[in-house]
Amino acid sequence: MKSAGEVFRLEKSDGAARAGVVQTAHGEFQTPVFMPVGTQASVKGVSPDELTEMGAKIILGNTYHLVVRPGLEVMGQMGGLHQFMRWDGPILTDSGGFQVFSLAKIREVKEEGVWFSSHVDGKKLFLGPREAVRAQVALGSDIMMAFDECPPWPCSREVLEKSLERTLRWAKLCREEQEATGTKNLLFGIGQGGDQADLRQKSCEGLLNIGFDGYAVGGVSVGEPEREMMKAIDASIPFLPMDRPRYVMGLGHPDQMVRMIGKGVDMFDCVLPTRVARNGTACTVTGPTSVRKANWTRDEGPIVEGCGCYTCLRFSRAYIQHLIKAEELLGLRLISLHNLYFNLETLRQARRAILEGRWQGWSREFLERYQRGGGSKEEEEET
Amino acid sequence: MKSAGEVFRLEKSDGAARAGVVQTAHGEFQTPVFMPVGTQASVKGVSPDELTEMGAKIILGNTYHLVVRPGLEVMGQMGGLHQFMRWDGPILTDSGGFQVFSLAKIREVKEEGVWFSSHVDGKKLFLGPREAVRAQVALGSDIMMAFDECPPWPCSREVLEKSLERTLRWAKLCREEQEATGTKNLLFGIGQGGDQADLRQKSCEGLLNIGFDGYAVGGVSVGEPEREMMKAIDASIPFLPMDRPRYVMGLGHPDQMVRMIGKGVDMFDCVLPTRVARNGTACTVTGPTSVRKANWTRDEGPIVEGCGCYTCLRFSRAYIQHLIKAEELLGLRLISLHNLYFNLETLRQARRAILEGRWQGWSREFLERYQRGGGSKEEEEET
Repeated sequence: MKSAGEVFRLEKSDGAARAGVVQTAHGEFQTPVFMPVGTQASVKGVSPDELTEMGAKIILGNTYHLVVRPGLEVMGQMGGLHQFMRWDGPILTDSGGFQVFSLAKIREVKEEGVWFSSHVDGKKLFLGPREAVRAQVALGSDIMMAFDECPPWPCSREVLEKSLERTLRWAKLCREEQEATGTKNLLFGIGQGGDQADLRQKSCEGLLNIGFDGYAVGGVSVGEPEREMMKAIDASIPFLPMDRPRYVMGLGHPDQMVRMIGKGVDMFDCVLPTRVARNGTACTVTGPTSVRKANWTRDEGPIVEGCGCYTCLRFSRAYIQHLIKAEELLGLRLISLHNLYFNLETLRQARRAILEGRWQGWSREFLERYQRGGGSKEEEEET
Repeated sequence: MKSAGEVFRLEKSDGAARAGVVQTAHGEFQTPVFMPVGTQASVKGVSPDELTEMGAKIILGNTYHLVVRPGLEVMGQMGGLHQFMRWDGPILTDSGGFQVFSLAKIREVKEEGVWFSSHVDGKKLFLGPREAVRAQVALGSDIMMAFDECPPWPCSREVLEKSLERTLRWAKLCREEQEATGTKNLLFGIGQGGDQADLRQKSCEGLLNIGFDGYAVGGVSVGEPEREMMKAIDASIPFLPMDRPRYVMGLGHPDQMVRMIGKGVDMFDCVLPTRVARNGTACTVTGPTSVRKANWTRDEGPIVEGCGCYTCLRFSRAYIQHLIKAEELLGLRLISLHNLYFNLETLRQARRAILEGRWQGWSREFLERYQRGGGSKEEEEET
């Protein structure tokens, strides 16, 4: 475990919102930050060069998916995830906990970990706290996540309590394994506790007792209403240290990220930009827009006026709509490039606003404009 | 109609093989040339920048598809096909004849043209020789193709004869319409005649009597065995002028193109590079390879050793195979980039061999190596 100062440098606070820098083995990145998701060693449809061009500084990989395919042995022989997918910047990997409980067919949950069947070929596999850390070390992950149990929503308090205790026991084993491997990569703890505020607090305090390089809020965006999600985050943040990075996992819509930055969150990841692109939905400053339905057939302008992304600098709304209607792959790709850029750029603007002491005004203006345009409703219908 | 010298400059012959330059309103391109196919105003999965980077000099569009969607009115308002898809180089457009007879539901074939139903929304549309030329003028096509009737294979001699006569009458109307519009774009005639050598000759002679900027062999690659296809081409080429470009439509496999260059063909187009990519098949010097089945799981080398394409310069066989197995869009895209480059580069090498007087040796070596590796068999199974 590294000292707070080795991991995180707080540059400026504006209210609860923070601008900082996180240091990893593959270089540093500035926060607040949006991390594109490359679940299976690829951000869907996008090349590493394009990620660099759009200003992505850190991306995600998923331990579960890479353990299932191509497998750790291959990943090790190919020199780890960076070398395999040709990405030189920092990589954060999920531990596999979330996927084991949401994607795989679970065979048996034991104190040591989980026996599960691969969703690809049914092969019986095992992941526990020690295995998840060793897997992430083998992948060469710059920021490893602790192996956690992620309960569904809704969930009884009794189940939440038991799950939380196990997650804390697993978190301790993850820390021990980090030390045992001698890796210089960071390890973040993951807070759970569902919709119970006191359990959220207990979870964060338990993690702090163990001590991690950074802290995440997990078990959100698992089907609960947005209000419940925000309550879970509100119940967690005050108990996470000021001097280390804070990460809310699996979020979110641009407006959700802006509101969470206002609560003191530094790091975000979400599959939304590429997932909604596959449905022909583009992110805009007035909320998501269905490219198919929009009145763009003869529109020579870009998706978003003034946007600096590859797509908006080159192609018209009319062309993008044609590609989507004609089911041309290039359409999906151009919207993915735009959506990823939109999320990255939104958080870059948030950072500038914090650094320049105009967070309150900027965030209020962003949210008003975004929600006036319909907010995330249309996007959810499309997804 | 332009004079032969305004359209084509023959640089060098080596046997029947030719190296030359074709001049269009959007600049010149060197032959032999492979033209990537952008049916619906997009080469599948590939951006215009990537086409430029891989050295594509001229691409195809399809009048039928663009008439059906987004329609000529939109294409005209958007400034034509070049402006719409952001491609500054030459574009050749098919006339729609082939698609009307193969893709649309035909309602009525009349002397003036064909009433058909759009394969997209069933809308009743009409294309005839004059309409096809006017459509291609509206698209801004640099090389327009005459509107032809493309008979199926097999086909009775009687039907072939009637069809050929009609195609010649339509060809004449296309020429008249080219003059009437005052366009500076080129118009190529299309020879038909099926598998009947004397009809192929008659077709070519008929086209020459009308006079076109260049000449194509059509009605091949419509399901006939390769031997029949080569016979149809052999029966046509001797009757096409030496001083204008010769184009065989819709072909082909790399080995087929090399053999046809040896017969004096200058221009080729084919959907194969992107179509087989969608099945996970990569073009190599020893023939097509199934990425999924290849023994590449731990292979750090590129798809083709020494290949200068984007994919081979950056990514390993192991990674490409992983992407295909994991059904990641990036895999399809990277193989498409490689396959298109492979076809372009094969014809660039053919051109250099002709210019340097070593065509015989180069083509024999290419074909031996390609066919030793299994030729096009595996590819056809995959398609």
